Amino acid sequence: MVSTKFKNYLFEEYGIKFKNETLLEEAFTHSSYVNEHPKESVGNYEKLEFLGDAVLELAVSDYLYRHFPSLNEGQLTRLRSNIVRTEGFSGFAIECGFPAEINLGRGEEKTGARERKTLLEDVFEAFNGALFLDQGMDAVQKFLKLTVYPLIDSGEFTDSRDYKTDLQELLQVNGAIKIEYQVLEETKLPSNFKVALFVEGKKISEGSGHNKKAAEQVAAKLALIKYQEK
Amino acid sequence: MVSTKFKNYLFEEYGIKFKNETLLEEAFTHSSYVNEHPKESVGNYEKLEFLGDAVLELAVSDYLYRHFPSLNEGQLTRLRSNIVRTEGFSGFAIECGFPAEINLGRGEEKTGARERKTLLEDVFEAFNGALFLDQGMDAVQKFLKLTVYPLIDSGEFTDSRDYKTDLQELLQVNGAIKIEYQVLEETKLPSNFKVALFVEGKKISEGSGHNKKAAEQVAAKLALIKYQEK
Repeated sequence: MVSTKFKNYLFEEYGIKFKNETLLEEAFTHSSYVNEHPKESVGNYEKLEFLGDAVLELAVSDYLYRHFPSLNEGQLTRLRSNIVRTEGFSGFAIECGFPAEINLGRGEEKTGARERKTLLEDVFEAFNGALFLDQGMDAVQKFLKLTVYPLIDSGEFTDSRDYKTDLQELLQVNGAIKIEYQVLEETKLPSNFKVALFVEGKKISEGSGHNKKAAEQVAAKLALIKYQEK
Repeated sequence: MVSTKFKNYLFEEYGIKFKNETLLEEAFTHSSYVNEHPKESVGNYEKLEFLGDAVLELAVSDYLYRHFPSLNEGQLTRLRSNIVRTEGFSGFAIECGFPAEINLGRGEEKTGARERKTLLEDVFEAFNGALFLDQGMDAVQKFLKLTVYPLIDSGEFTDSRDYKTDLQELLQVNGAIKIEYQVLEETKLPSNFKVALFVEGKKISEGSGHNKKAAEQVAAKLALIKYQEK
């Protein structure tokens, strides 16, 4: 159960007090907890996450559109994608003291789910979905103004690069070029992916990372360096 | 320039009257027109499209969350993805009489851009972005209630299947299985992709389509049939 201490903290720090506390509880409840406590009537956060994902996408888009008038559509899209990436939101979840409040099943607890970035991102999205349902978009914007937006303004997400897009833009300046990524190896616990990058069928680079996306970014970054050296 | 007739139609049919008509004009202006008319101060629709994309994503998510309480998160996600797909929104653009109002450059006009689905989708997104800026989310919801939502309720998007997700769910029921798609051929004018589908490194099927996504769906559908026959 979400603690009274946390509820007080939400109010004192962010001015947030849920009218419907069931929504707040649901946002912090993982499916593994629901499975282990079938008699409690609380649902898991997945549907709120579905909604919250779209809530954050619009909130951030709206903020970027209004506050960065000099950026073009491509730059805005890239900046938005840097912000709504897993790592970003999980950091805010930690900063806001979310991990301690998550209702988790025992099995998931043992495997360290409480610190897992993807889970923390899910809960951050679900929380914003719940806040949207409870109090509307203005309340979400107010909360993000105290958490996410200051980091956007500080340029935190501006430097973060999307190397796959950079590579595509570099190579396709004179027309379509076939760029492919192929998974070479995939291991679990700890999760590790190794991918190869092919340009017009020729292998250019390899990259490793904790998921496919991260591995592809590494491969694209190495390829970019190679092409820029030419 | 957006015609007076169209502005009247927007008001009579949907109750929409823009306070800031520059936003409406921008939503209907393609970059090719801006390039050919450098002295007109109108911008192209790309930034409104960036915003409108997120506006529609949230509007549709909110609608689905509230009106389909029996669906789980996976089903909601799939339904949303069917709705916000290119073909869907371009159809609404045609239905609302958007094509005739688009400000296009002469070159684009000759290549049939006015009927191009991706361009019509962009304009539909940009229009909703403009409406959101001019009058807020409630006005967007009201417009969608007269256009998009009746088709959702009629089940128009429910039958449309995501075979890649279906295949993943079928194969991964007992744990992670490596499913890969590899582009075999890619031709332009007309655009055609051919992909192969590998499961744990073994080729299972091939598919062709006008883009990579469509080709992958065909390959996944064929693979599904194979596995379900077993």
